Amino acid sequence: MTRVVLLEGLREVPADTPVLRADDLGVVRGESVFETLRVVDGRPCFLDEHLERLARSAARLEIDLPDGFRELAEKAAAGAPDAGLRLTMTKGGVGFAVCFVVPAETVRGRTGVTAVTVPLGVAADFRSTAPWALGGVKSTSYAVNMATLRHAHELDADDAIWVSTDGWVLEAPTSTVVAVIDGVLMTPPVGTGILAGTTLLACRRLTEILERAVSVEELARADEVALLSSVRGIAPVVVLDGRELGAGPVVKDLAATFEASLR
Amino acid sequence: MTRVVLLEGLREVPADTPVLRADDLGVVRGESVFETLRVVDGRPCFLDEHLERLARSAARLEIDLPDGFRELAEKAAAGAPDAGLRLTMTKGGVGFAVCFVVPAETVRGRTGVTAVTVPLGVAADFRSTAPWALGGVKSTSYAVNMATLRHAHELDADDAIWVSTDGWVLEAPTSTVVAVIDGVLMTPPVGTGILAGTTLLACRRLTEILERAVSVEELARADEVALLSSVRGIAPVVVLDGRELGAGPVVKDLAATFEASLR
Repeated sequence: MTRVVLLEGLREVPADTPVLRADDLGVVRGESVFETLRVVDGRPCFLDEHLERLARSAARLEIDLPDGFRELAEKAAAGAPDAGLRLTMTKGGVGFAVCFVVPAETVRGRTGVTAVTVPLGVAADFRSTAPWALGGVKSTSYAVNMATLRHAHELDADDAIWVSTDGWVLEAPTSTVVAVIDGVLMTPPVGTGILAGTTLLACRRLTEILERAVSVEELARADEVALLSSVRGIAPVVVLDGRELGAGPVVKDLAATFEASLR
Repeated sequence: MTRVVLLEGLREVPADTPVLRADDLGVVRGESVFETLRVVDGRPCFLDEHLERLARSAARLEIDLPDGFRELAEKAAAGAPDAGLRLTMTKGGVGFAVCFVVPAETVRGRTGVTAVTVPLGVAADFRSTAPWALGGVKSTSYAVNMATLRHAHELDADDAIWVSTDGWVLEAPTSTVVAVIDGVLMTPPVGTGILAGTTLLACRRLTEILERAVSVEELARADEVALLSSVRGIAPVVVLDGRELGAGPVVKDLAATFEASLR
């Protein structure tokens, strides 16, 4: 079941109904902003945090964000037991929500994923000095994110972790990286131009996660690694660049605490 | 007048008709490929070259490109005296053409544009070694291109020229760069991950344009600079990073020869 609800009039339409014009700048130039949320028992999780990030992304792309996204999210999620929810606002002025069944592969990821590190080609401090590079903005210009995931799949991995040219860990194409090093949970700083993760934010309310630069060498000897994202949740990285890590106790604990907090 | 024609059935629809679903991957992830062409006397210019590039981009994004784009382009362009034409194919399986009036600002650009150099944050050889970075692919994930143009506008320039971290000229967000240095026309190599320009290709049939690495220092002392793109054509860069260049004789000659070749 996929449910599509338009912001205008909070009107539900059949999922196969076209809703976007051929000349919408969101379609033509990838100039839309979006958020993907998890829905538990009909309730969109961390809706405040997602709406705040949606507003920040919209400001950066100079997209007018109308009121009503909260009501839109709640209406689209209502009645869904455990689902995913995507909120989108195009530069052409169309807002909509899509509530969708979480793919089985995504659910499986909660028990563990394999990952490879992949160069992003930029230095860790570039995007903080170059606003036009849109670091930290969640837009629908995601073709490179998707191509990076396909590249990982070609290397028989489920996911990828981008690293900078100067040897720092950045983020995954659709997740935030957390590493456990010498017993301490840590995550790369948003000053590297990565997306400020909403799942990370929620986890930092549950346990201490240090925000500090993590080098590629540190990642390579980390005791545990996890990828945090809204719908998949907390995915332990069980194999990283061919090294067997397994699902360790710190990440398992965090995942259990996090999952419990959603109910 | 904007004319929208769908690939399916070569059916013309009113421009304000929605044609794309909310869950089309082209909408959701910027995973569509597109081409923008100039239309002269009802004929799409350099259609073969654009269709070849569309096919190359589609292969890189793993988008199925059905037959019929030639007929689609010809139908959408028919009767338009001087216009722009955008061909798009989404990963969700929707192909369409939009024929549009060339904006007055674009036409003005043919007499000269001002430009600034802007760092892209990558080395000139990165994208040729990193296929996931999608160098040379014309996808609708264009938010960074548009943000770079907005950045140029904030600096009171019409356009931007991306440069690499190691000091080489790359491309403009929607154009190819050509420089005249010591009387020789030259353009950066596609090995830098830039888009292979169709207007450049057409110009190289009319005059010799050397493909060789151009350094930022060389650009800064170039006699003439031009930006080549399909709809705007050949735009002399009359001011670059604040330096007055004017529209010089070599670019003026090329532009006149090129415009004549379209009729």
